[in-house]
Amino acid sequence: MTGAPAGPRPPASGPPPVPFGARLAAAVAATGPLCLGIDPSAALLDAWGLPDDPSGLRRFALRCVEAVAGVLPAVKPQVAFFERHGAAGYAALEEVLAACRGAGLLAVADAKRGDIDSTAAAYGDAWVGSGPLAADAVTVHPYLGLDALRPLLDTAWATGRGVFVVVRSSNAEGRSVQEAVGSSGDTVADALLRQVAALNAARSEHPGSVGAVVGATLEPSAFPLASLGGPILAPGVGAQGATASDVAVRFAGCAAGTVLPSASRSVLAAGPSAAALRRAAASLRDEIAAGWA
Amino acid sequence: MTGAPAGPRPPASGPPPVPFGARLAAAVAATGPLCLGIDPSAALLDAWGLPDDPSGLRRFALRCVEAVAGVLPAVKPQVAFFERHGAAGYAALEEVLAACRGAGLLAVADAKRGDIDSTAAAYGDAWVGSGPLAADAVTVHPYLGLDALRPLLDTAWATGRGVFVVVRSSNAEGRSVQEAVGSSGDTVADALLRQVAALNAARSEHPGSVGAVVGATLEPSAFPLASLGGPILAPGVGAQGATASDVAVRFAGCAAGTVLPSASRSVLAAGPSAAALRRAAASLRDEIAAGWA
Repeated sequence: MTGAPAGPRPPASGPPPVPFGARLAAAVAATGPLCLGIDPSAALLDAWGLPDDPSGLRRFALRCVEAVAGVLPAVKPQVAFFERHGAAGYAALEEVLAACRGAGLLAVADAKRGDIDSTAAAYGDAWVGSGPLAADAVTVHPYLGLDALRPLLDTAWATGRGVFVVVRSSNAEGRSVQEAVGSSGDTVADALLRQVAALNAARSEHPGSVGAVVGATLEPSAFPLASLGGPILAPGVGAQGATASDVAVRFAGCAAGTVLPSASRSVLAAGPSAAALRRAAASLRDEIAAGWA
Repeated sequence: MTGAPAGPRPPASGPPPVPFGARLAAAVAATGPLCLGIDPSAALLDAWGLPDDPSGLRRFALRCVEAVAGVLPAVKPQVAFFERHGAAGYAALEEVLAACRGAGLLAVADAKRGDIDSTAAAYGDAWVGSGPLAADAVTVHPYLGLDALRPLLDTAWATGRGVFVVVRSSNAEGRSVQEAVGSSGDTVADALLRQVAALNAARSEHPGSVGAVVGATLEPSAFPLASLGGPILAPGVGAQGATASDVAVRFAGCAAGTVLPSASRSVLAAGPSAAALRRAAASLRDEIAAGWA
């Protein structure tokens, strides 16, 4: 494999990149507030008449990109569905990420990565650095502490990418960790939201590029989301039960372009026709946008 | 890519697989209690005179496998260092995992994956199922709740693989999450250890195959580790500060073959010579084994 392409490269010189927070706000202003989760599970591949192999993944995901380009600001490929096919699955994901760039769609890699030290730096290289899987933003988990992810955050800031910290997940099983109470008296989730807000406040970018994942299905916690200073990725719209009016109520007061509700199955069920996917995505996007008005 | 190999396949029929817990205990009994972390960071690749590209990763990791086959029971490839090189990095990892199987070394994929629903199932397919990256065991994070990982656990049980839940990490930043107090009055970490113990107790395998990651650098918590009923992966030996006597004291009373201390930099610093790596690994292994006596 001596002739294989080199991996991560140092950032190119030139003008500073436009930060992710600003790019997301512009994209939401241009098209509307909805992200499509690209979830090529075995069940959905089957429903779309595609094989459960890397060629099926690729066709599924490129169909999604084709369908929502110009209609939505962003897509969120779920990395696990590519990883289950190993290197060949990741080759398909590289192609999908390139297609997003070509189509002007922001790509949020839903990877939920997290580790410490040089490993956190390596995940930064992989997803928000100069590796072949680099996306516009990545989701991370904070179980080892948000501060441990600093090397990944530093890479994201340097390259104009974003990071969404998984804080409050839409599933019930997460409560036992996320609602435990720390030494400050805050829940784990609220303490993390405060940390995210502090990271954004310490920088000159508005909006900031460090965001949080907060399920659209959840009742508000004590932390006022409008003061996060960065974007909110809000999964759970549609199949998981959150409605457009839930989104409007739960994220009321957040700055324009900082809330990115995300739907997967409720839109993907309209496939495999790209035209039908586009109609389903535009309809849900408009419903959510109307809720903000 | 129509001609690409199919991805995850259903488990082959035949006799039930030997569970990971039993395989680990046998391997530790045969060679001794130490796992080598395979961490091909940019800095270590450079120190070994290897390029920071997929060929360098491959040579680094295969050197580690060659060095410790027959000397240690297991290796722990750190997935992030492969992922930063994208699909080509994962192709190297697939080759490394195959080399482990050929050398009779158990491979613990240090991936710290975690998610919910069909995504948790996809991570199970990827790392402990029938995907090309399947290893003997995988590390997972519980930020979304251990119960959310049930689809991954079910796959591991069905295939005779193991799962190590990251519970108490060796870094200080993790305390704010791991030592928060839940509604039961337990810390997050202790509540998770109880859940792991319950998962193992509910099955007929002894030792169980659901383990925990507990840093070897940490003082004991309230939960008695000897009652976990499954294996403990204990990183932090050597460069992170834990000594052989720390290991002996902190995991006293745990069943034979259920504790797997892990070292990375302290052994890898002996490279790039395979003979020197082997000597460093055997020496640390013997030091830890002597501590148990």
